[in-house]
Amino acid sequence: MTQYSELIERLLKGETRAAARLMTIAENDIEAAEDIVKSIYKNTGNAYILGITGAPGSGKSTFISTLIRKLVKEGKKIGVICVDPSSPLTGGALLGDRIRMKEHFSIDNLFIRSMANRGQLGGLSRATEDIIKIMDAYGCDIIIVETVGVGQSEVDIFKSAHTVLALVVPGLGDDIQTIKAGIMEITDIFIINKMDLPGADRKVSELIRMLELNMNYSYSDDINNNFAKINQWTPEIVKTNSISGENFDKLLEKINKHKEFLKKTGIISNYHKTRIKSEILKILEYKMTQKIEKLFNTSEQIDKSIQKVINKSTDPYSMAELIIEMMGIEDSF
Amino acid sequence: MTQYSELIERLLKGETRAAARLMTIAENDIEAAEDIVKSIYKNTGNAYILGITGAPGSGKSTFISTLIRKLVKEGKKIGVICVDPSSPLTGGALLGDRIRMKEHFSIDNLFIRSMANRGQLGGLSRATEDIIKIMDAYGCDIIIVETVGVGQSEVDIFKSAHTVLALVVPGLGDDIQTIKAGIMEITDIFIINKMDLPGADRKVSELIRMLELNMNYSYSDDINNNFAKINQWTPEIVKTNSISGENFDKLLEKINKHKEFLKKTGIISNYHKTRIKSEILKILEYKMTQKIEKLFNTSEQIDKSIQKVINKSTDPYSMAELIIEMMGIEDSF
Repeated sequence: MTQYSELIERLLKGETRAAARLMTIAENDIEAAEDIVKSIYKNTGNAYILGITGAPGSGKSTFISTLIRKLVKEGKKIGVICVDPSSPLTGGALLGDRIRMKEHFSIDNLFIRSMANRGQLGGLSRATEDIIKIMDAYGCDIIIVETVGVGQSEVDIFKSAHTVLALVVPGLGDDIQTIKAGIMEITDIFIINKMDLPGADRKVSELIRMLELNMNYSYSDDINNNFAKINQWTPEIVKTNSISGENFDKLLEKINKHKEFLKKTGIISNYHKTRIKSEILKILEYKMTQKIEKLFNTSEQIDKSIQKVINKSTDPYSMAELIIEMMGIEDSF
Repeated sequence: MTQYSELIERLLKGETRAAARLMTIAENDIEAAEDIVKSIYKNTGNAYILGITGAPGSGKSTFISTLIRKLVKEGKKIGVICVDPSSPLTGGALLGDRIRMKEHFSIDNLFIRSMANRGQLGGLSRATEDIIKIMDAYGCDIIIVETVGVGQSEVDIFKSAHTVLALVVPGLGDDIQTIKAGIMEITDIFIINKMDLPGADRKVSELIRMLELNMNYSYSDDINNNFAKINQWTPEIVKTNSISGENFDKLLEKINKHKEFLKKTGIISNYHKTRIKSEILKILEYKMTQKIEKLFNTSEQIDKSIQKVINKSTDPYSMAELIIEMMGIEDSF
């Protein structure tokens, strides 16, 4: 029973305004987010989560618009979370795109939230998890988590995605390089977007070379039906044109194929466990960090101890060990 | 007394090979790094640390080469640490640049280390701190920490820099945007590199506009001598040509001016305390995270608890709280 009980009740009935309100609350207040997630947790776990990334210029916004249009036409309820871990500076542009995107759809079947990085990276991925859960409990069938391509932070954010799509475009020489290594390894479907541009097929070959080089995948002629390793997904490559909508049916097929693969191999339940484990770990680490920082900023004893490091009568490592001892944590492990 | 005592003794005598060996050990073995830092800590604190960042294409390598040449000519001993937090993929290129850079100098007055992100971001900034300390104890007068521009991770890495330089080039339309907001706020001197390209002066105006917009700095006519706020440094802007070396004398003056500012205002000692505090905090958080992860991967009780979250008989937040209680940490704060 929380102060949000009434809103949560309305959320679970599928009321849009209550959902929007709870997301805003969760985004702005981390304590409230905890309360909300605790209350709705048993109503989550039904949404399929798509992670989408790509460098600036790869046409992510148009791609996502077209994808959403397809999915809404199928009667799906869609949630979109746009995460920009890099900077408040680009927040405006992202938001602008979102607003443009939103014009196309009836509000009931589409939820769009933009999230910028206001604190720690860990905090952002945790906040993303919270918003995912609210959308899930609200009844979204598919939740799209979009991020710009900046490396490690995406890998964290995409931990909850069932299927990860990465966009590249023909022509931009180095754009495969801009799919950072961490992302490469978690991508299930590569999209060659703007397939009408010259060089699309060359980009496919480049991608295959890159995959073989980095991940020991081996592509056979029978590229679409042959898993390189038992129980291991070989990334698919799909060319799309987000403006004409060409190949989006094919893309949806591939997403479904990946979904089936996850189910058939049992990976989806292992994955579910791993995801929950990593989520609890993230929350734990966050809570511990908060405790430590609070201790740091209030304890006189710590302040005196720091003075000793400044005087060089001890060093930062020995001091950290001492503090852990002071906190009485050492013994409890 | 550690197994590295002999190497450390030789390091403190300024022996190059011992320094190189210790850096390699520290980079590859985090436990060894601790031992080493503990032993040398009282011999650190003498180097002046420069942080340098800039988007790809801003000419960082040539800029740093020219800067080093100037400093070596002044008889300074220089350490350079090239940090790439984004990806192992670009590690090769960076390393190549370094090797090219190294050809110009006698090895005794110049140490260059490349570090890629092999683990967590926090781990990388910690490793950077360790290498800085070894270079410092070895006797480097100036340590240059170079990173590519990717946001939050730099802000962490630059926590130990006394003066932070950020490079932009004329012409590249959006490159000021690529100096992420976090970096903007910690930059002391902006470099308009490749000043011979058209648009250098326009870039200066853009930068000033950006600074005024983002940070409430106000530039007077008397731009070089007027601090906008008492005890607050107004970022300097210097145009350079790294190939001809034009304006590097001016740049060195500005760096010295900033150094004097830090001393005169007493900021340098506050800053020293803040830096040590944040360093201990980082070590503490790292050690706690390690403990938690170890617990997670070995405790049967935790494994059973996770099952409860999977069954939805509880939620991740409640479980995290329970685990903190289990660890007996709650009471010690």
